[in-house]
Amino acid sequence: MNGAQALLRTLADCGVSVCFANPGTSEMHFVAALDTVPELRGVLCLFEGVATGAADGYGRMAGRPAAALLHLGPGLANGLANLHNARRAGTPLLAVVGDHASYHKRYDAPLESDIDAIAGAVSGWVRRSARSADLGADAAEAIAAAMAPPGRVATLILPADVSWSGGAEPAAPAAVRSPAPVREEAIRAAGSVLRGGEPCVILLGGPGMRRPGLEAASRLAGESVRLLSETFPARHERGAGIPPVDRLAYLAELAAGQLAGTRHLVLAGARPPVSFFAYPGRPSSLVPEGCQVHVLAEAPDDVAGALAALADLVAPDAKPVPQQPERPDLPDGELTAQTAAAVIGALLPEAAIVCDEANTSGLWLGGATAGAPPHDWLTLTGGAIGQGLPLAAGAAIACPGRSVLALEADGSAMYTISALWTHAREQLDITTVIFSNRRYAILGMELDRVGAAGAGEAARRLLDLSGPSLDFTALATGMGVPASHASTAAELAAGLRQALAEPGPHLIEAIVPPPW
Amino acid sequence: MNGAQALLRTLADCGVSVCFANPGTSEMHFVAALDTVPELRGVLCLFEGVATGAADGYGRMAGRPAAALLHLGPGLANGLANLHNARRAGTPLLAVVGDHASYHKRYDAPLESDIDAIAGAVSGWVRRSARSADLGADAAEAIAAAMAPPGRVATLILPADVSWSGGAEPAAPAAVRSPAPVREEAIRAAGSVLRGGEPCVILLGGPGMRRPGLEAASRLAGESVRLLSETFPARHERGAGIPPVDRLAYLAELAAGQLAGTRHLVLAGARPPVSFFAYPGRPSSLVPEGCQVHVLAEAPDDVAGALAALADLVAPDAKPVPQQPERPDLPDGELTAQTAAAVIGALLPEAAIVCDEANTSGLWLGGATAGAPPHDWLTLTGGAIGQGLPLAAGAAIACPGRSVLALEADGSAMYTISALWTHAREQLDITTVIFSNRRYAILGMELDRVGAAGAGEAARRLLDLSGPSLDFTALATGMGVPASHASTAAELAAGLRQALAEPGPHLIEAIVPPPW
Repeated sequence: MNGAQALLRTLADCGVSVCFANPGTSEMHFVAALDTVPELRGVLCLFEGVATGAADGYGRMAGRPAAALLHLGPGLANGLANLHNARRAGTPLLAVVGDHASYHKRYDAPLESDIDAIAGAVSGWVRRSARSADLGADAAEAIAAAMAPPGRVATLILPADVSWSGGAEPAAPAAVRSPAPVREEAIRAAGSVLRGGEPCVILLGGPGMRRPGLEAASRLAGESVRLLSETFPARHERGAGIPPVDRLAYLAELAAGQLAGTRHLVLAGARPPVSFFAYPGRPSSLVPEGCQVHVLAEAPDDVAGALAALADLVAPDAKPVPQQPERPDLPDGELTAQTAAAVIGALLPEAAIVCDEANTSGLWLGGATAGAPPHDWLTLTGGAIGQGLPLAAGAAIACPGRSVLALEADGSAMYTISALWTHAREQLDITTVIFSNRRYAILGMELDRVGAAGAGEAARRLLDLSGPSLDFTALATGMGVPASHASTAAELAAGLRQALAEPGPHLIEAIVPPPW
Repeated sequence: MNGAQALLRTLADCGVSVCFANPGTSEMHFVAALDTVPELRGVLCLFEGVATGAADGYGRMAGRPAAALLHLGPGLANGLANLHNARRAGTPLLAVVGDHASYHKRYDAPLESDIDAIAGAVSGWVRRSARSADLGADAAEAIAAAMAPPGRVATLILPADVSWSGGAEPAAPAAVRSPAPVREEAIRAAGSVLRGGEPCVILLGGPGMRRPGLEAASRLAGESVRLLSETFPARHERGAGIPPVDRLAYLAELAAGQLAGTRHLVLAGARPPVSFFAYPGRPSSLVPEGCQVHVLAEAPDDVAGALAALADLVAPDAKPVPQQPERPDLPDGELTAQTAAAVIGALLPEAAIVCDEANTSGLWLGGATAGAPPHDWLTLTGGAIGQGLPLAAGAAIACPGRSVLALEADGSAMYTISALWTHAREQLDITTVIFSNRRYAILGMELDRVGAAGAGEAARRLLDLSGPSLDFTALATGMGVPASHASTAAELAAGLRQALAEPGPHLIEAIVPPPW
């Protein structure tokens, strides 16, 4: 068999069942080989950033990698921003980047570029396959690398001749590393800290944001011990029945308030908190002065196990305190980011998957959905906007039968708007709510926060999306997604009810006032 | 003044008058400084690939750089594919990439990434400004680097603290290198070849594709000397009154036919011809066996001067042979790629700028427009699709008063579709024709050409855009661009007439049958 066939067979044997693809000429043998490996479903995306973002959403929900098939350096570049987000999320993901035939590269054909350099910027593992005979083993290793806890982007560069040449064989799956076991000395050290009674925050992150970690952490919370989580978790299991945790605020000044007075910060899957951006005269680190940082467990470790061991040590009889069921009333009147959040909180279906790229319009979402039926909340881990609509596609494919809600800021949505076409083509159960405030609202705020003096009309014009106003219902229907407008809270509720009741994708453009 | 103000003042003094921008928090001081430098027009793009593609189109037409303002590594990544095209075009272009404050980088905040590695893949010049006091000089050097013939992508990495700190001063423009002068020995050598009478092809490219180069080359053409050009010129001046030249075909087998029997290939601004992709069992180089390659002038050289000197040497009395005015009749009947080309040839306005990303649907465009009034033809130089709509925006801003025609394949258009919003916001005189054949038609052809056996339904589905069909008129109107459908040649003619007669942007979706 040829290299491509061996590659796909190996991937299928390693449990890869989806390939989000935007192929080109150098990937045609890969594409043709899909017909020989029916376990592997090809999903066409109209832009590579959709393919990589979808692979991220898939990996976060499935816990195993999807493949993203990309065309040469420019295809990788187009997919890079969402690979960056996946890297920050610790998502298991395989990027297969087709390249020119190895003998063709020295001719510097128009599409030639330095794929290796670009791939290195986002990948935890990169390999350029040299021979068809190696390709099966390379693929198996790539999957093992992608699956190594907590997960990473593995990039396999696939020269066209390696893909088309014969003499290849599939390889057996390679062993996947387990999470690093609980470190007793870290448990004991954290135990001493917690018993000391000084103000302490356990900062949860990574795999600690799933139910087992949250339940163990909840046993530890008390008068002197508070729980907080990283600002942008990859996957947060939350809602009624699951112990709640507040996320550290995006705004450094608010985060500083949340952490004020803390003498000990115990990290459980989270990294030391830092300001998202630098601001003149403000510190980058959010660790309060005089606060000691203790690492209980890092993201590659058995975070939930470490939390449970710690709870068994210091609070053996404590029980998790679950979130009580609670929903906001359906609001009346005008549609604002706040009333929109209440509508969503009132109607969020059980086992929903929320892809949250609502940015400034999302401020009230966490509170409004805290007591909704249990659900997963996926966030923008790496700050590279244009993630939400692709992420939703991947999550929906990973979890058929669950409702996916994509909560999108208008500005962010436009980066990868063609993801809607994939929603339609695959008839995915995704309801997209566009918070249309016709601004890069967050930048209007940041313009002031960074102290950029002298900003006037020219500057404001670069943050304004109102001339002309985007009509997201036209964009959606142009790509085959039924769509409606909502200008009142009741209209949003009606639209959301209908969208959730019908199979397939929907989009609701929620016209909300800007925060400035 | 702060760094950003000194930077913008320096850029304006160096002749930069437009900045295509998609800013973020780390660029807020740059944005604010736009109000202090009114000579510099900020143009908002909703995706970085639009900003870089527009800067490419601007640079090709203006002959001087626009700036593209990008947000950190992910913003650069989103703009990278069109920077790749600009690099291949030899376009003068300044990419300004905001970065975290220098002291903030070690905290590895969520948006931290290896900007330098990514920038290196597309830039002919990269610098990370270290101090506000250096920023003016860095900017002046960046512009000189971008302008060095034939032009290149210069990337200035701008840490936020360098942007916001004071003590900066504008710098005077730096000297710009001139094209390398005519090399006498190259002229003499080429003269000997031409006088020898063996079958010879002069392969034009780069700056040789403008009127002076074409007129000089035309004097050289004769029984044993044929003219051809590179396949994808950055800017080809053509039409009635300008000597014509056939472009080397994209398909290697056709290009081989064009070059068959050639004993001498004289390069004038072009590189040795290579196959766009590798195909099993076919050579990468398109230079026929036994053919000698002679370099008359390279792209950074005075290509037109070299051609003129060569003509003065071997054909002192020869005159250029201009293309005669000639237009196809307006066709009747069904709309196909061929009749669409005839409509465009019949109606192309004088001094139009054509941005050609029509791909397979564009096969007949060159012939149909050869004798139209003089115009510029801009092509997809680097093969990274998603260039045309952004390119058109930049060309229109560089050349107000000229009609811009964006001829787009449906698949390619979707990569950077949000460029239409910038067309609308800036009310640019751009008429976009989408050739909607609802396929990645070129890949259907390439699937066979690479000999990918066994391709069936799964493979074909990855090349198919018909389920659901994209409605480009909905997409366009959703972004503020008036749009219409054309299903017959007469409808296309009517739509095109109206679009060309009215100011501002228009889009026509031309429904054409797929080639397979």
